[in-house]
Amino acid sequence: SIDTMIPLKSRALWNKHQVKKFNKAEDFQDRFIDHVETTLARSLYNCDDMAAYEAASMSIRDNLVIDWNKTQQKFTTRDPKRVYYLSLEFLMGRALDNALINMKIEDPEDPAASKGKPREMIKGALDDLGFKLEDVLDQEPDAGLGNGGLGRLAACFVDSMATEGIPAWGYGLRYEYGIFAQKIIDGYQVETPDYWLNSGNPWEIERNEVQIPVTFYGYVDRPEGGKTTLSASQWIGGERVLAVAYDFPVPGFKTSNVNNLRLWQARPTTEFDFAKFNNGDYKNSVAQQQRAESITAVLYPNDNFAQGKELRLKQQYFWCAASLHDILRRFKKSKRPWTEFPDQVAIQLNDTHPTLAIVELQRVLVDLEKLDWHEAWDIVTKTFAYTNHTVMQEALEKWPVGLFGHLLPRHLEIIYDINWFFLQDVAKKFPKDVDLLSRISIIEENSPERQIRMAFLAIVGSHKVNGVAELHSELIKTTIFKDFVKFYGPSKFVNVTNGITPRRWLKQANPSLAKLISETLNDPTEEYLLDMAKLTQLGKYVEDKEFLKKWNQVKLNNKIRLVDLIKKENDGVDIINREYLDDTLFDMQVKRIHEYKRQQLNVFGIIYRYLAMKNMLKNGASIEEVAKKYPRKVSIFGGKSAPGYYMAKLIIKLINCVADIVNNDESIEHLLKVVFVADYNVSKAEIIIPASDLSEHISTAGTEASGTSNMKFVMNGGLIIGTVDGANVEITREIGEDNVFLFGNLSENVEELRYNHQYHPQDLPSSLDSVLSYIESGQFSPENPNEFKPLVDSIKYHGDYYLVSDDFESYLATHELVDQEFHNQRSEWLKKSVLSVANVGFFSSDRCIEEYSDTIWNVEPVT
Amino acid sequence: SIDTMIPLKSRALWNKHQVKKFNKAEDFQDRFIDHVETTLARSLYNCDDMAAYEAASMSIRDNLVIDWNKTQQKFTTRDPKRVYYLSLEFLMGRALDNALINMKIEDPEDPAASKGKPREMIKGALDDLGFKLEDVLDQEPDAGLGNGGLGRLAACFVDSMATEGIPAWGYGLRYEYGIFAQKIIDGYQVETPDYWLNSGNPWEIERNEVQIPVTFYGYVDRPEGGKTTLSASQWIGGERVLAVAYDFPVPGFKTSNVNNLRLWQARPTTEFDFAKFNNGDYKNSVAQQQRAESITAVLYPNDNFAQGKELRLKQQYFWCAASLHDILRRFKKSKRPWTEFPDQVAIQLNDTHPTLAIVELQRVLVDLEKLDWHEAWDIVTKTFAYTNHTVMQEALEKWPVGLFGHLLPRHLEIIYDINWFFLQDVAKKFPKDVDLLSRISIIEENSPERQIRMAFLAIVGSHKVNGVAELHSELIKTTIFKDFVKFYGPSKFVNVTNGITPRRWLKQANPSLAKLISETLNDPTEEYLLDMAKLTQLGKYVEDKEFLKKWNQVKLNNKIRLVDLIKKENDGVDIINREYLDDTLFDMQVKRIHEYKRQQLNVFGIIYRYLAMKNMLKNGASIEEVAKKYPRKVSIFGGKSAPGYYMAKLIIKLINCVADIVNNDESIEHLLKVVFVADYNVSKAEIIIPASDLSEHISTAGTEASGTSNMKFVMNGGLIIGTVDGANVEITREIGEDNVFLFGNLSENVEELRYNHQYHPQDLPSSLDSVLSYIESGQFSPENPNEFKPLVDSIKYHGDYYLVSDDFESYLATHELVDQEFHNQRSEWLKKSVLSVANVGFFSSDRCIEEYSDTIWNVEPVT
Repeated sequence: SIDTMIPLKSRALWNKHQVKKFNKAEDFQDRFIDHVETTLARSLYNCDDMAAYEAASMSIRDNLVIDWNKTQQKFTTRDPKRVYYLSLEFLMGRALDNALINMKIEDPEDPAASKGKPREMIKGALDDLGFKLEDVLDQEPDAGLGNGGLGRLAACFVDSMATEGIPAWGYGLRYEYGIFAQKIIDGYQVETPDYWLNSGNPWEIERNEVQIPVTFYGYVDRPEGGKTTLSASQWIGGERVLAVAYDFPVPGFKTSNVNNLRLWQARPTTEFDFAKFNNGDYKNSVAQQQRAESITAVLYPNDNFAQGKELRLKQQYFWCAASLHDILRRFKKSKRPWTEFPDQVAIQLNDTHPTLAIVELQRVLVDLEKLDWHEAWDIVTKTFAYTNHTVMQEALEKWPVGLFGHLLPRHLEIIYDINWFFLQDVAKKFPKDVDLLSRISIIEENSPERQIRMAFLAIVGSHKVNGVAELHSELIKTTIFKDFVKFYGPSKFVNVTNGITPRRWLKQANPSLAKLISETLNDPTEEYLLDMAKLTQLGKYVEDKEFLKKWNQVKLNNKIRLVDLIKKENDGVDIINREYLDDTLFDMQVKRIHEYKRQQLNVFGIIYRYLAMKNMLKNGASIEEVAKKYPRKVSIFGGKSAPGYYMAKLIIKLINCVADIVNNDESIEHLLKVVFVADYNVSKAEIIIPASDLSEHISTAGTEASGTSNMKFVMNGGLIIGTVDGANVEITREIGEDNVFLFGNLSENVEELRYNHQYHPQDLPSSLDSVLSYIESGQFSPENPNEFKPLVDSIKYHGDYYLVSDDFESYLATHELVDQEFHNQRSEWLKKSVLSVANVGFFSSDRCIEEYSDTIWNVEPVT
Repeated sequence: SIDTMIPLKSRALWNKHQVKKFNKAEDFQDRFIDHVETTLARSLYNCDDMAAYEAASMSIRDNLVIDWNKTQQKFTTRDPKRVYYLSLEFLMGRALDNALINMKIEDPEDPAASKGKPREMIKGALDDLGFKLEDVLDQEPDAGLGNGGLGRLAACFVDSMATEGIPAWGYGLRYEYGIFAQKIIDGYQVETPDYWLNSGNPWEIERNEVQIPVTFYGYVDRPEGGKTTLSASQWIGGERVLAVAYDFPVPGFKTSNVNNLRLWQARPTTEFDFAKFNNGDYKNSVAQQQRAESITAVLYPNDNFAQGKELRLKQQYFWCAASLHDILRRFKKSKRPWTEFPDQVAIQLNDTHPTLAIVELQRVLVDLEKLDWHEAWDIVTKTFAYTNHTVMQEALEKWPVGLFGHLLPRHLEIIYDINWFFLQDVAKKFPKDVDLLSRISIIEENSPERQIRMAFLAIVGSHKVNGVAELHSELIKTTIFKDFVKFYGPSKFVNVTNGITPRRWLKQANPSLAKLISETLNDPTEEYLLDMAKLTQLGKYVEDKEFLKKWNQVKLNNKIRLVDLIKKENDGVDIINREYLDDTLFDMQVKRIHEYKRQQLNVFGIIYRYLAMKNMLKNGASIEEVAKKYPRKVSIFGGKSAPGYYMAKLIIKLINCVADIVNNDESIEHLLKVVFVADYNVSKAEIIIPASDLSEHISTAGTEASGTSNMKFVMNGGLIIGTVDGANVEITREIGEDNVFLFGNLSENVEELRYNHQYHPQDLPSSLDSVLSYIESGQFSPENPNEFKPLVDSIKYHGDYYLVSDDFESYLATHELVDQEFHNQRSEWLKKSVLSVANVGFFSSDRCIEEYSDTIWNVEPVT
């Protein structure tokens, strides 16, 4: 045992001084003040909210680290199969409040304190010291290390894996600049860099002792010229940087299990490169070192769009190489034979971004560990599994072989060899289907330059491929990957519908609702957050007036919280009339701005409504009559567009122009408001989502793989309007079709509809035609009447790819239904709201992790 | 009082939990293990020496921070006059060992522990935990934030100011890359970037709450067009970056006073620049932010040479603006009138690098605080004092007005106005001396482009100007600044001879000698390190054989320590024969490589010696006869050349070529060895200096302002050979001319000698001629026989600017004397060694700080 290597005396001393977790307010205060006075070198006289946030975070981090150490030591001792979740994005949001909810406190002297109320304890302790918890929490900048759903999914998954005791680490990059902050200036999106580390980050453990060298460029050397690329080769790299580990403790809920999220940052090597000293002057060599850090400087701000930049490929390899090296080092400590690697290690690829890990593992096994090619490849394919997130062509990664081979010459050889063996197998199985080979090849030959199809490489290198909702998992089998289903058979392709963690999206985001649920279910320690099936008991109360009143009151409180936020962001002026909040439908669409997500459909609907209202007034209707037909409603938008995505940015501008006109039109007397909340992020989502009555998930059928904000809204008692797309399908199945407002064409008709548009380009419903004409009239953009022409033209003249015209009428009709139900059958509405929450359990990310564990990873919790 | 603003309950809690310093080994261990297990998130199973270094440093830092807080609170309460020492370089070396020596530990329960032995206590505590203090100390990278003497002087000064209780802060820059690491490859210096923060830095307190915006570029706006540049103007800056403070606690010796060294690092602002959003795309705005950090990326690696790069000027303004803003903020808290500013604040300019602080203060007072120009200027000149470090033209800073005005448009206006008033006063006083005006003007008009003479600006803006040794202080008055003496009178110009801190350069570098002194003086608590006059008592023992034997043994031990280092650096092979160490003269020259410091004179002397030995052998002498004339000697060199300094780099190559020939010539049987220790830095100096018998301080008379390594050698019992230059003069005065080997021409003759060289270019002594001929023969560089031609030519044909030929003969003769004394009159030699140490007291930097305090700053210690 390793113990015996340490002298008895030292061991005794270490044990004696072992750090203990605090479990009382008093001990927390002691630690807090210690951090203020030593780590921060401040005092009670200059301890502001920011310092309090830092000291509180460090104190709680210390507690987590103690459990982190124990968890990791347990894993080392038990040596179970481990899961590594590779994701280029982890959209974590804020950490302190989440830690307060998740962390486990046990005071043997005061067992009541262990009844799951660490947050309350810390709140009281801070209060005694003169700080308000809410103000302290508000100091924390969001860890915006992701673009949208993909990154937030990864964040939910690490929470669930920690909660369930799965021995799992996340691996990602520590971007110095997270997703840009969005400002709205004159209605336009303007991007400002998000230098989120500007005030340090108390939640990370800088692991200077974990520095892994990563190489780029260079050439391949094979000791004996006669051998092939299949034999052990030596890659002589040209550029070398260090990957330094930063660890973020991930506490599970109601467990002392604390998992790890390891993010890599690029740093210059300090080693001296003798090969280069001849041509390197000092100034130049410093500049070269400084460039190293640029690898992890910026998160690429695209969502569902692959941008083929060399630096992006560099990020991907840097991250894959460092993570894999780390994984291999850990495996090698166990001294097991390589054949056992897939029994000990499962690596999940979140989208194709980490596909290079497949190639890197093959390279390490063949070139460095000297395994036979096929033996190595067998290990590789048993280890990896790949999650597909999209069927959209523009989002599928491809790399030109020229660029790729320059950066990673040995990896290109290996990919060619992987492809060669793969195509041989395909040809053997389907000897007559010549066309199949070029369709299925990892190398695309038809484009001007040959390209590597990363999704195909990911499939060939994995033992399982999953989609993220039932519809999507079916779609990939019948469209982009159908040849692979033909070759491998269908069992390689599975579905794991996405989920979200109820700890953040219910307990943290919606404390009032959590409280009501906990009281109603008589579940004071909130076990339902672990076992969401318990929520079905809420169904018993759908006719209970008293309960529905409370339920409604929770929603109202959350609306006030949101209205406060909007007021604050609008320089202290209310946009939304506070008088009738309970009677105002809060209709939301918050997510990345994307044509396929169809915010344009939403805003066209708003314009239609506004014009109709104006028309009624013009035709002599009273405001009461108007209100009857178009009752009080606030349309709230939030979301970022990729900085280079012209059409999406134009949609943002249109929303803001419409808001400007509608919100200032006194004739409609506040019956309709439009709000664009700038800089939508996780913290804002936590305020926006709980306030919704209705939310919009209206992507063109077949385009949204799953969506997860739909689940978040449902979990917070909001109803949804949506197309038959992504997880909307399963939400409908779970909570019942009576409780969801579905509309629009189905995915199986999309191709035909698009085809038809070629021949009937102007065949628009009159409702939409009037909206587009009004936009074309320039009323929303008097200074630049043609401003929104591209949006109009894309529908009128460019084939309406996203089928806005096809779905517009049913969209309007469904909204009419919504209005009537909300305003005239409120108890029915509330019943639907309760049933939504009652049946949302399936969408807990805990369920996802169980499915991944059982069907893909073959791992079990370690308790 | 500020106390009353904090609720009683909170105050009581803070007091109850106030952090206490550890004062026992046990409490240190507790803290140490806490840091390992929480801050580092490691355990006894993976706590290596590096982790132990980090945990020990953080534990001790915590103790220092507690005293730091108390010290700063005391200063805030007492509000005494403060000193701010502005230096672009602080060559601090390592911090842990120094802190162990300086920090004050008082255990009321165990008063013996407070008898000044914190280092021993920690050593024992670490030993119990399984670590060797020496190995732990060895993990620390040098803080190499300086080039040479100037930076190390600043480091000694902050130590003395803390020790003496002067309320003083140092202000500098936190370079991400310190002075480059020097590698020797094929005899050549190769520079590699020193990324010293690669493993973090436990000694700094990152003050994210102190972020000061600094502006560059832009233009000047004056609200009403009619007003002049003398009236309050508005500088509209173009580029904006943040200066973030990093604090390094500076513990005084035997006091709980802990001062602060504040270093600024540049960071991007996160604020959004509305003025720019129109033309800024996202990628570009990120790149622009990233560039901000380059301001403090690199220390310019020149010593005594001014390089006119814009980035350097940017560094200077960034640092001056941030520091001044910080100083003003502190002053303004006292609510005193501006006229009291000079009574409360003394700012010392270490060389001209911070001269912009003068202009910045004038700008703030006039433009922002709206003071009248002359009132402001009176405050400015009473506040600043300037230390000159050189009379060499190439080292005097000048900035072209074009470059300057582009970067700092408002500052250029202010400089013009300062100059205008100054020249008016000069013209008034000397109305007939027209030539004087152009000579004394802050703006030099003669060069192709007009330039700002920073030294002149510093003089005009200061109330005192000092040189750093008596000879140098006289020289500036009679050469470069003589016109200013004529104008201001001589009393503005004073001398403060440099000094060094005996804590680092005796106690830390030479623990054996410190122990012998402490025993001999019967001074167990080492009071002599505070009162160096006590050392004179050593004079009583110069005839005490037993004592001299011990004294000699200390030197021998230190030689072994150095020989071990050299062996380690030479891949484990001894260069120096260990058999005769006591009988081998260790002759050293360690300092920056510079023609004016004349390492070439030293190496020519070695070549002469080697050739003479070879000649004797050739003429039939026995090796014993040779040894009699040229006894055992090791010549040790160390030092860096500026990367772009061709001649200095050639000198390094020559030393290494000579070493290669000499060390491998078996015929001379180890009588002579030459060693170049690569990458000379503070840590290596601490090993090299205590091992010296003789050291060389042989600059051309009048060129070395002071020198401080001469003092370090003397403090460690090494004798010196030197020219009548810099502090050599006062060393001779203090320790007696019998104890110093002086040689060479005097500074008053330099001009004439140089003039003569124009007419007698080849008038070389034959000794030197033979050396140069041998070099020219290519024997040292067979692969490139002409390699060293530029070195030879500079003497033979280019005027021998540094007077090597003039001093060569007396240099050789003096070395003959040295040899004979060391080898034949060892007790005389040892006596000189003892008397050197006995009389070195004057050169304690404590004495410097007292002089600065009395004659320049007008401040007193706060106790």
